[in-house]
Amino acid sequence: MTDNPRIQPLGFPIDNHIPARWYNLAADFPEPMPPYLNPQTREPITAKDLEPLFAPGLIELEMSKERYIDIPQRVRELYTNFRPAPLYRAHNLEQELGTKCRIYYKYEGNSPAGSHKPNSALAQAYYNAVAGIKRLTTETGAGQWGASLAMACSMLGMDCEVWQVRSSYDQKPYRRMQMETYGAKCWSSPSDRTEAGRRIQAENPDTSGSLGMAISEAVESAVSDPQAHYALGSVMNQVIIHQTVIGLEAQAQLAKAGESGADFIFGCAGGGSNLGGLATPFIGENLREGKNARVVACEPAACPSLTQGEYRYDFGDMSGLTPLMKMYTLGHEFVPDPIHAGGLRYHGMAPMVSHAYHLGLMEARAYPQEQTFAAGLEFARAEGIIPAPESTHAITGALDFIRSGEAGDDQVVLIGLSGNGVLDLAAYHQVLKK
Amino acid sequence: MTDNPRIQPLGFPIDNHIPARWYNLAADFPEPMPPYLNPQTREPITAKDLEPLFAPGLIELEMSKERYIDIPQRVRELYTNFRPAPLYRAHNLEQELGTKCRIYYKYEGNSPAGSHKPNSALAQAYYNAVAGIKRLTTETGAGQWGASLAMACSMLGMDCEVWQVRSSYDQKPYRRMQMETYGAKCWSSPSDRTEAGRRIQAENPDTSGSLGMAISEAVESAVSDPQAHYALGSVMNQVIIHQTVIGLEAQAQLAKAGESGADFIFGCAGGGSNLGGLATPFIGENLREGKNARVVACEPAACPSLTQGEYRYDFGDMSGLTPLMKMYTLGHEFVPDPIHAGGLRYHGMAPMVSHAYHLGLMEARAYPQEQTFAAGLEFARAEGIIPAPESTHAITGALDFIRSGEAGDDQVVLIGLSGNGVLDLAAYHQVLKK
Repeated sequence: MTDNPRIQPLGFPIDNHIPARWYNLAADFPEPMPPYLNPQTREPITAKDLEPLFAPGLIELEMSKERYIDIPQRVRELYTNFRPAPLYRAHNLEQELGTKCRIYYKYEGNSPAGSHKPNSALAQAYYNAVAGIKRLTTETGAGQWGASLAMACSMLGMDCEVWQVRSSYDQKPYRRMQMETYGAKCWSSPSDRTEAGRRIQAENPDTSGSLGMAISEAVESAVSDPQAHYALGSVMNQVIIHQTVIGLEAQAQLAKAGESGADFIFGCAGGGSNLGGLATPFIGENLREGKNARVVACEPAACPSLTQGEYRYDFGDMSGLTPLMKMYTLGHEFVPDPIHAGGLRYHGMAPMVSHAYHLGLMEARAYPQEQTFAAGLEFARAEGIIPAPESTHAITGALDFIRSGEAGDDQVVLIGLSGNGVLDLAAYHQVLKK
Repeated sequence: MTDNPRIQPLGFPIDNHIPARWYNLAADFPEPMPPYLNPQTREPITAKDLEPLFAPGLIELEMSKERYIDIPQRVRELYTNFRPAPLYRAHNLEQELGTKCRIYYKYEGNSPAGSHKPNSALAQAYYNAVAGIKRLTTETGAGQWGASLAMACSMLGMDCEVWQVRSSYDQKPYRRMQMETYGAKCWSSPSDRTEAGRRIQAENPDTSGSLGMAISEAVESAVSDPQAHYALGSVMNQVIIHQTVIGLEAQAQLAKAGESGADFIFGCAGGGSNLGGLATPFIGENLREGKNARVVACEPAACPSLTQGEYRYDFGDMSGLTPLMKMYTLGHEFVPDPIHAGGLRYHGMAPMVSHAYHLGLMEARAYPQEQTFAAGLEFARAEGIIPAPESTHAITGALDFIRSGEAGDDQVVLIGLSGNGVLDLAAYHQVLKK
């Protein structure tokens, strides 16, 4: 099917702390998830509808109702230089807070790209490489996802092209340099390289770009080339499933630390990839084993899809190119304020996370940016790790519940620390200047 | 002695893969190291001479001939959110090279500051906090050390002031932001805050600064305040001893991987902190147990202290404020070209490393910048991790020995990967543009 030598497993023994299977909450939901709809027919989407964009292995995941899916050996091999990701106890922060809660954080910032995004990027690149695809296209905003896909493509010997929202392309040159260091091409979107980009520029030459525009360009580039596919960093089921390595590892690590589970789980909520990856294995345990982990989605007040949005069918992108997905949404034309947590600036919420929230399997809180940066600084100065602006939302939730007493005493609190903030230092700087 | 609550151990159990003791090669040298000399008297320096600048616990380390020194419990606790640092097998790189050598890299880039520097920063901050010191001063060039000391001071509740070489202060704003995020103050050197800085500026208002000037400012600030001390990121014995956690962990991790040791060890060589920390435990085994690990110091061709320098007494800084140290040196007034591996731009070499080299206990090679960046790119695209420009020197050495056949077949090759290159992406960008 393909002559790409990099998809062959090298066959070395793999740390058994790296999960051998992904978890799929779709198998445990008490009610089935509403299907994606074809926007033309309003009928449930078929595998065939997805084929122009996605590899067969990924479409299978997208549709799967299996509880566990074996992680391909080669993908597990590619996980080995950053997984298992550490679960740290926040001893110093606990001391500062004077709390009896035991605070743990699952830290994804040690991946080469600095966040949890490679968990899915490597899997998507692998399945596409197996299908003989030579080039992946994607969009990126702040750049965590684009950098991760660039890395994955370099490790799997594929070309990668990233359309980065123009304002981010101009403001965050380090992310672009990161992509280029991995050998990827990174274009400022809207670009001259696609019909969509040229049309947008003709209509509005001074636009600062948007994710919606960048998606249009990446999709157009992929569908016009039989050797190319499109990849995406969040929202869809396949991504949440890939990201469950986070929660599965955390469950095993908590057990190893002598805990019977987590009482509270705080995850940052944008498109849902980190939150879903961290929390769905715990929600599954709640459902199957009667455990009571309380999952709290922590979203930005500037983009409160769960706490303020409607649960209805909507498009995943601004231009209406994607299937219709049932999700909590602020409307696919909603443009959030330019907060620093660029990874959370998404109008909707992953259908799998939305369904869990709709069924009452998780809660949600929205926090304003000043509070999240204050929490990030407090965390950095106690624990040493500077969290990504996205991750500070999860920290904010934990501090809020602990300080207000809502978490109670002697509880096990798990924070999803999705990434480090090293390339977001300019945002910290702006906050500190005030 | 002090009311600083952060020096108290929290008392939690510590992963026994984090070393409990530092190693000191001074105990195993076949000939004793030449002492530091007081520059006025030319007599060996005494503990008393060092007291204005250093805490008693650090002076003890500086003078110690003990083979093992217990790591204070609190310092081990502070190591727990980044140690043990991973030892990775470079499976993908081996595949690319088609080598039968087993290549391992000891990766220090997962520390919160992105390099191995926190290993010593936390120890120095701790001993100073125990001595009741409230403020630490230091100089920094590119900023890895300044950021690490800033982090350590925030975790130990101390103030931190960093004089950063003006050209770096202007060119690398992210490092300064990192220090400020930890609550440190960072001044562009020469500054208006010291006599030395004011004098230099009066004489040469447009100077781009130098490490020598920045050291003068940091030392002046420390000695003029009884509650302040000075800290340093490399060169001195205490730093090499702190950094031996790298080599000690690597020895245990190689054994766990089924290796009887390393045949070749490649470390980048600037002031000597990473190389010394990685290699001295292996050199000790060579001496005590008759092992044959070949240690290769990999230095920049632009600053080749071991391969081109003289072994003689010289000052550690440009202005002649430090004790005289016997070391390989290009002369304390030598100004290397502004290569991107700023951490390797040091005129001398740590006396402990110099003595080992003088006794034939290690080798050295110098590599030009084009070759080191090419090696860094090759590594990043195979392994996913973008190495710091300093670390690429160690990679270059390994690739050189493997490709030339000098390493032979079936050998165990250990690379010291001292840090990640995320905040050095602009350097990669410049190289890629060519």
